[in-house]
Amino acid sequence: MTAHEAATLLERQDNILILTHRRPDGDTAGCAAALCLALRGRGKTAYVLPNEDATALIGAYYGAVNAPAGFEPDFVVSVDIASAGLFHDSAKQYVDRVDLAIDHHPSNEGFGRENCVDATCAACGELMYDICCQLGEVTPEIARALYVAVSTDTGCFVYSNVTARTHRVAAALMDIGCDHMAVNKNHFRTKSAKRLQLEAILMNSVDLLQDGTVAIGAISLADMASIGATEDDAEDIAAFIGQIEGVCVSVTIRELKTGECKLSVRTDPTKLSATDVCALLGGGGHAAASGCTVFGTVQEAREAIYKAIVTIQNR
Amino acid sequence: MTAHEAATLLERQDNILILTHRRPDGDTAGCAAALCLALRGRGKTAYVLPNEDATALIGAYYGAVNAPAGFEPDFVVSVDIASAGLFHDSAKQYVDRVDLAIDHHPSNEGFGRENCVDATCAACGELMYDICCQLGEVTPEIARALYVAVSTDTGCFVYSNVTARTHRVAAALMDIGCDHMAVNKNHFRTKSAKRLQLEAILMNSVDLLQDGTVAIGAISLADMASIGATEDDAEDIAAFIGQIEGVCVSVTIRELKTGECKLSVRTDPTKLSATDVCALLGGGGHAAASGCTVFGTVQEAREAIYKAIVTIQNR
Repeated sequence: MTAHEAATLLERQDNILILTHRRPDGDTAGCAAALCLALRGRGKTAYVLPNEDATALIGAYYGAVNAPAGFEPDFVVSVDIASAGLFHDSAKQYVDRVDLAIDHHPSNEGFGRENCVDATCAACGELMYDICCQLGEVTPEIARALYVAVSTDTGCFVYSNVTARTHRVAAALMDIGCDHMAVNKNHFRTKSAKRLQLEAILMNSVDLLQDGTVAIGAISLADMASIGATEDDAEDIAAFIGQIEGVCVSVTIRELKTGECKLSVRTDPTKLSATDVCALLGGGGHAAASGCTVFGTVQEAREAIYKAIVTIQNR
Repeated sequence: MTAHEAATLLERQDNILILTHRRPDGDTAGCAAALCLALRGRGKTAYVLPNEDATALIGAYYGAVNAPAGFEPDFVVSVDIASAGLFHDSAKQYVDRVDLAIDHHPSNEGFGRENCVDATCAACGELMYDICCQLGEVTPEIARALYVAVSTDTGCFVYSNVTARTHRVAAALMDIGCDHMAVNKNHFRTKSAKRLQLEAILMNSVDLLQDGTVAIGAISLADMASIGATEDDAEDIAAFIGQIEGVCVSVTIRELKTGECKLSVRTDPTKLSATDVCALLGGGGHAAASGCTVFGTVQEAREAIYKAIVTIQNR
């Protein structure tokens, strides 16, 4: 259904529970908070199910909207959840009773009784903006939650998913007064000291091969321990090496346990398929971003993945 | 004068030379290319003065618009130049004969015969967009140059100078088809391997003081030499340390010659004035970003600036 139909459906409901996806990001958390506040603005009782996976930064957006224990909803809405497999643990009880799924993923499985999916949106927040506009006044607080959603899912308007509409929604939210400066500072201009130390370690570990077009780097268990880094510090670090000028194939090796390495492969898919490379080592994924596991040392993982890359290049 | 008046003035001119500022960035280069192409679209003869300071990335935007040797203009326009001191060497001959200065810096000195300055614009490109719209059709090529201007002067829409208008201009340029993906990739998602190695060196050099609120890092001559880095690789590296979570005062020390260190100080100006700190060492600048020189070793520079910070804190 369209954003207009979804808003119309929501206008007829009450006692609404909103679900976010596992390991929640700014898009799912921002959309949930915005929808909850917009529904309350219409006089509804609405809550967001607390998400046990949330980091401190993302968890802050749940604060005022978290459902109290024992809340019994009459209507369940999921936001930014593409498939039943992406429900967080405490949301799994609702997986078969989602009344309305609001999403922007092309892979959305249509698990909701009603589904409002627009895959042309860079962020689910663009779609949610339309829904919130129909529900009533978009307050600065709602605008801030929507700005979190739209900005984080586009890397602050830098990813290839950005469209003119993305910028128009951002402009509308800034007109309302969405405190974009605080959001930008927290999400895009701040890194933990440990994260920056990890990036330094990773950069120092990089082997540049084939005239600098192939880059392979690694973070070992010893590296993580040496600075007391956690998984939070290493989140999404697979994108780091790919920014090196001239690199078309980047591999980030994470030693997860002694003798077990997880490899993330990023490629320019017009030149080499990451899927094909990872398939040789029993892994898979997308043409531009795939992964696999090598049981061995970091050095063995380096050799195995480079052999796989050369094999696919010579095919 | 307003953008409308500036465009009207330009419509009456021909044989137009456009000047950019020394060490040109995307805003000055993008504005110059856009204006030149828009004027040509009106049937004018127009060129941009070649800028000897341009890096390879920025120089690419001058390619099709560079003035041939010996071009004698009847009308001279400067774009994004705030003061006469910012003319690049080969532009200095025109410093007293700028017919129209188009700029967005609040500090603009008004050196043009006519001045079109709008300090509410995050980028000069926003103002130039209005001027180009009046001059005629904004082609995809013009839109790309304007997108370069607007995106680079806002760090891809992340700096505090961004307004709703910035996003609206970006949306309009994307509607035209400005190839934003290539611009974003080149300017915001690519770093040279040497730059990343320098950032790693800098991060490893950081002293975190006062519960992690003060960070002091350094790049020595030996560091630069060890990886063969150039000044291009070190450009704007003073912003790097400031992104460490919790840091309110960051200092980046660059050893420029044996016994001479340049220090860049960045602060949260609500907590400490960078100007006051640097003034103690004979330097100056803005409340949030200032600089000074210490004649001594890197270690002596570390000690001198920390002493200055503590002196101002205790004042």
